[in-house]
Amino acid sequence: MAAQDNYVGLDVGGTTMKAAVVTGAGRPLSKPVVMDTNPERGQDEGLETMCETIRRAVAAANLTFTNIAAIGVATPGLMDIKAGLILDPPNLKPWKNVPVRDHIAKAFGLPTAYQNDANAAAYGEFWVGAASDVKSMVLFTLGTGVGGGIIIDDKIIEGEHSHGGELGHVRIAMPDTGRQCGCGARGCLEAYGSATNVVKRAREDMACWRGPASKLRDYYTATDEDFTAKVIFRYAADGDELAMKVVDDTAYYLALGACAVMATVDPEMIVFGGGMVAAGEWFRSKIGAYVNRYGLPFPTKSVKIAFASLGSDAGFIGAAGCARMLVQRKQ
Amino acid sequence: MAAQDNYVGLDVGGTTMKAAVVTGAGRPLSKPVVMDTNPERGQDEGLETMCETIRRAVAAANLTFTNIAAIGVATPGLMDIKAGLILDPPNLKPWKNVPVRDHIAKAFGLPTAYQNDANAAAYGEFWVGAASDVKSMVLFTLGTGVGGGIIIDDKIIEGEHSHGGELGHVRIAMPDTGRQCGCGARGCLEAYGSATNVVKRAREDMACWRGPASKLRDYYTATDEDFTAKVIFRYAADGDELAMKVVDDTAYYLALGACAVMATVDPEMIVFGGGMVAAGEWFRSKIGAYVNRYGLPFPTKSVKIAFASLGSDAGFIGAAGCARMLVQRKQ
Repeated sequence: MAAQDNYVGLDVGGTTMKAAVVTGAGRPLSKPVVMDTNPERGQDEGLETMCETIRRAVAAANLTFTNIAAIGVATPGLMDIKAGLILDPPNLKPWKNVPVRDHIAKAFGLPTAYQNDANAAAYGEFWVGAASDVKSMVLFTLGTGVGGGIIIDDKIIEGEHSHGGELGHVRIAMPDTGRQCGCGARGCLEAYGSATNVVKRAREDMACWRGPASKLRDYYTATDEDFTAKVIFRYAADGDELAMKVVDDTAYYLALGACAVMATVDPEMIVFGGGMVAAGEWFRSKIGAYVNRYGLPFPTKSVKIAFASLGSDAGFIGAAGCARMLVQRKQ
Repeated sequence: MAAQDNYVGLDVGGTTMKAAVVTGAGRPLSKPVVMDTNPERGQDEGLETMCETIRRAVAAANLTFTNIAAIGVATPGLMDIKAGLILDPPNLKPWKNVPVRDHIAKAFGLPTAYQNDANAAAYGEFWVGAASDVKSMVLFTLGTGVGGGIIIDDKIIEGEHSHGGELGHVRIAMPDTGRQCGCGARGCLEAYGSATNVVKRAREDMACWRGPASKLRDYYTATDEDFTAKVIFRYAADGDELAMKVVDDTAYYLALGACAVMATVDPEMIVFGGGMVAAGEWFRSKIGAYVNRYGLPFPTKSVKIAFASLGSDAGFIGAAGCARMLVQRKQ
């Protein structure tokens, strides 16, 4: 029986990996299969876990591999996308120079696409998510760090050194005055806009807050472990002025990131994804207002600012989309 | 006789326009024909001047239009590249909504490509200039303003609103602390790195200079009309410390622009063009040193920093290259 228009998408993260079979229309045929990555057990076991996750995903869809046209795998950087290699990612230590693409392709005898995880998420949103109606888009993923992906005319901007769309490290402030980023540099968007840095900024703002009484400040001390971006956004939604300042600043910083991609690739839509977008329309419109104020006037009039719609499924859906692209290109 | 592998490239600027016939190998068949643009005489006369410049270019190459396969026209923005329209460019007042592409195509009965002037210059450098050996590149043009163009895999990143590669307006500093740009915003690269702003910064640095005696300072007063970026670079080359500071700062700012495009599109090569690159290798290596210091470590190891090689011919050569691309795509 000939392979059908079905693709396995596998999204490998530092803690877990997820896979599902996705149809050619971008619809997952089951909930994703989730397995622990356990990178500390070494890359051989890691590759075998990837294969097992893929096998279980096919089983979960009540299919066999004869029904699968291709496989897509997404991993965090550092990586060499063209060569299909995981290089030396901080989230997958101690893996090094892992030939993911060729291993998977050989294990299943199927065409295998390989992509950066944030690029895959961007492609997922472009294919069947928030950006499915546009021709070009940029995704900012807001989590522990800030990642990104750029899609123009159905093509992922991978970059010559697999660093296309490393949007967390676009600087929004000069190195001499900018905030310290986890990458070692200063002024990176990530040092302002990641969930981790939203919390850091909130602690700093608390320390010098002179506005009205703040519940956020009353309830959280500098060492409180439960103090998360989610909590800050909830207090802001409830009208706490200190929390509102932190959220407002976040919108401003994210808008500066959006302005940077508008002046470079000028996309039709800019999408933000990650936990913070649960805040919803009031936060989206805050970002939009700052883009209006600080973006290049002409593209700003028309650019669409949206929140991601696929949640944490974007990665494996996008990886499946990359698999589909691979096969279609070869036809 | 069938049309041959020759293309007319026309580069329209606010003061003059230039055209020449360029072969399919990127070689101009004559020096460019130059005519005054005289935008103040209106757009109908402007369109006729474009046609006349094209006619003279074909004559200068000792050819007839039967030898020409296509025409490429580049103009400064604002524009609608897809629609082939000059919209409302500050350099071509009072022109508005000028249907350049269709007018030229109809006048000569030839396929006509239309492109932004900085994008065309980038394509020229990509096709047969400094970046002819690479697969992706970004050009920064340093003049009165700062322009740019991004080419990835033989494709120009035009942007959804014809604002792709508007690199002068990538911010390198935050709006609250950044220098005032001519566009009205603050913190744009252009407010630091254009020739105009090199001079402005030099005047500011003079006013508070506490270093050793400076000939630059001795010779130039705040109102001296001959005080240009070229002069500053010459003094810097001669070892004047004030001038060296201005040039060093310029390299730093340009490097921050380079870092921004590395984190977005991660090109194989970054090219700087315009008058300042006459300074040569010592200035290029200064920019390179700052990129090494402030760029994302992985792509920084391999990215090539180069100076443009086509000078002011890049625009019409690139426009001809766009014409060639148009015909090749249609074949």
